Amino acid sequence: MFGLFQRGTPIFPGEPIVVVRGPLIQAQIIETMVLLTINHQSLIATKANRITRAAQGRPVMEFGSRRAQGYEGAILGARAAYIGGAIGTACTIVDRDFSIPALGTMAHSWIQIFPTELESFRAYARLYPDNCVLLVDTYNVLKSGVPNAIKVFEEEVIPRGFRPKGIRIDSGDIAYLSKEARKMLDEAGFEDCQIVASSSLDEYVIRDLLNQGAQIDSFGVGERLITARSEPVFGGVYKLTATEENGEIIPKIKVSENVGKITTPGFKQLYRLYDKGTNKAIADVVTLHDEEIDNTKPYEIFHPPLYTWKRKTLRNFYARKLLVKIFDNGECVYKNPDINEIRDYCAEQIDTLWDEVKRFESPMNIL
Amino acid sequence: MFGLFQRGTPIFPGEPIVVVRGPLIQAQIIETMVLLTINHQSLIATKANRITRAAQGRPVMEFGSRRAQGYEGAILGARAAYIGGAIGTACTIVDRDFSIPALGTMAHSWIQIFPTELESFRAYARLYPDNCVLLVDTYNVLKSGVPNAIKVFEEEVIPRGFRPKGIRIDSGDIAYLSKEARKMLDEAGFEDCQIVASSSLDEYVIRDLLNQGAQIDSFGVGERLITARSEPVFGGVYKLTATEENGEIIPKIKVSENVGKITTPGFKQLYRLYDKGTNKAIADVVTLHDEEIDNTKPYEIFHPPLYTWKRKTLRNFYARKLLVKIFDNGECVYKNPDINEIRDYCAEQIDTLWDEVKRFESPMNIL
Repeated sequence: MFGLFQRGTPIFPGEPIVVVRGPLIQAQIIETMVLLTINHQSLIATKANRITRAAQGRPVMEFGSRRAQGYEGAILGARAAYIGGAIGTACTIVDRDFSIPALGTMAHSWIQIFPTELESFRAYARLYPDNCVLLVDTYNVLKSGVPNAIKVFEEEVIPRGFRPKGIRIDSGDIAYLSKEARKMLDEAGFEDCQIVASSSLDEYVIRDLLNQGAQIDSFGVGERLITARSEPVFGGVYKLTATEENGEIIPKIKVSENVGKITTPGFKQLYRLYDKGTNKAIADVVTLHDEEIDNTKPYEIFHPPLYTWKRKTLRNFYARKLLVKIFDNGECVYKNPDINEIRDYCAEQIDTLWDEVKRFESPMNIL
Repeated sequence: MFGLFQRGTPIFPGEPIVVVRGPLIQAQIIETMVLLTINHQSLIATKANRITRAAQGRPVMEFGSRRAQGYEGAILGARAAYIGGAIGTACTIVDRDFSIPALGTMAHSWIQIFPTELESFRAYARLYPDNCVLLVDTYNVLKSGVPNAIKVFEEEVIPRGFRPKGIRIDSGDIAYLSKEARKMLDEAGFEDCQIVASSSLDEYVIRDLLNQGAQIDSFGVGERLITARSEPVFGGVYKLTATEENGEIIPKIKVSENVGKITTPGFKQLYRLYDKGTNKAIADVVTLHDEEIDNTKPYEIFHPPLYTWKRKTLRNFYARKLLVKIFDNGECVYKNPDINEIRDYCAEQIDTLWDEVKRFESPMNIL
């Protein structure tokens, strides 16, 4: 009995595919948990990668726990965000359980608890002179927050032999405020003091802020990352594609008026084809399980059932089998990579994708 | 030390509010978990209620586990969907743990596992003659699925002394297919056989289907319910609004250029005001904690800080305090209602809201 986790052929680089081969009842029982796990974590890793790319090398921190969809959405979501490219999370449990850096700055309540903003900054700077990031928007960023921060940097941080680490702006017009704050910090001699921005950010807002010359060194991204707000559904499916009787594989199909929902029958292998010159991924090709791709000869790919008129003959390419055996007769035969290996692998793989595929809006099917 | 979970005053009916009063560090430690729990479950219950209302009394089943944001998103999401008005869920764990009815129909894989659709229907009908709902879209709804279902109802269900329960359509144009299927079932004498629809449904699609006269008796709603796809973020905040020193309450504020982010200072009570004639909710009013609302005199309400020019004087109204003590000095003094009491309370409360507030798009602030 076989199940194949996919929809359409070939799938585009980046879509996960899982083949489940086993007794029907066993394959059915795991269906929902397999889908849920892959759909959720792929969703958040993908969103994090988009946001990270929008930040153009500036660090992105995951700040979304309070609005995640459930406790596990917060924790496994933060882990997925790290895999996708975030540098850490404000969810401390994730640091404890997965060794993903816990990061963050002070809360507004810290500032409010003191009689004045200045006193709250002083108290914080004395506690953390080596890692002093001050939240400057509790009352007024440019008239109160930044001047008080500069005063405290000068009076509490520098005398202790440290450089100020940064300020954080969490509301108001981040582009304008960051540019003005940058000037004030520079004039005070704190050119190395970083500006952290947060406030309903996502890849679109970050792209626009940077296009407008916002002076931001790193981003804290919350609800729109942890829920993948722009598209909170990752539409993986789990389809029966073949059965086995007396050693014979019998392909099975599900037909639909929605052509994208027609399944590709059979027990399969998945290849990713790369261009030899650029090492960029050209396509993912679903073949029958025992089919080999010979890259010494021209190889024609096409897209059933959606774009049957689009065909392309590849010449200068190489093929990589993507399926890796995880369980063999109920036993796990796969060594789980550690979290940083997964993150590095993700970054390497994203690097093999063309910019056209990675575009935030209207990405191209490059086939 | 006090924290008040709210943003703006007065809040509109339906927004949850929680007051946390305790030592600062204790109030801070629970912040994220309190927010996450309330934000997530309020989000899904709200979405479920919208979808249920769109269905105009037709039952809605929660079918979204496979695309929920994490395991807990699936389980507590299904529970919240039930509270919001769904009649049950395809997530069987939720039945086991919360006594919420597990509901569902057959999967496409059941049909595919047999040599023919007809044989799969027969096998199912023999197993469940008393509860026979057949999935008719695996190959072709009108040419194969419905005729085979009718044949099996006649040959396997009726002779066993039962009436056929229903058919489910999961793809294609649901409006057209349901109307055609209805005719075919009626002509076969199965006017009481129900039609269940599923396939990327939400309140908007359901509203349009019913407007077009789709012949649907109940709905299975998946990914768009369990992720609240139209708005997957429920924006609850947790703000320090007062401190206490030597028995004296000191109000605290957080200012912002985004006026909606300015907090309302002080230790508070929350009232819901109802119109005496209609028993509909007029507004939620945030007052100081020891302030009483006297409904024997005209009472003027307004909306700081957003709509300061909007004022209304109420005369024929009554007020209900919404805050209920849950913990007293660390001890739980609240008896948790059972799941059906919560669901009934939700339905009653929704019934006190004006249609203008419940509109799916551009709901009115009735103040």
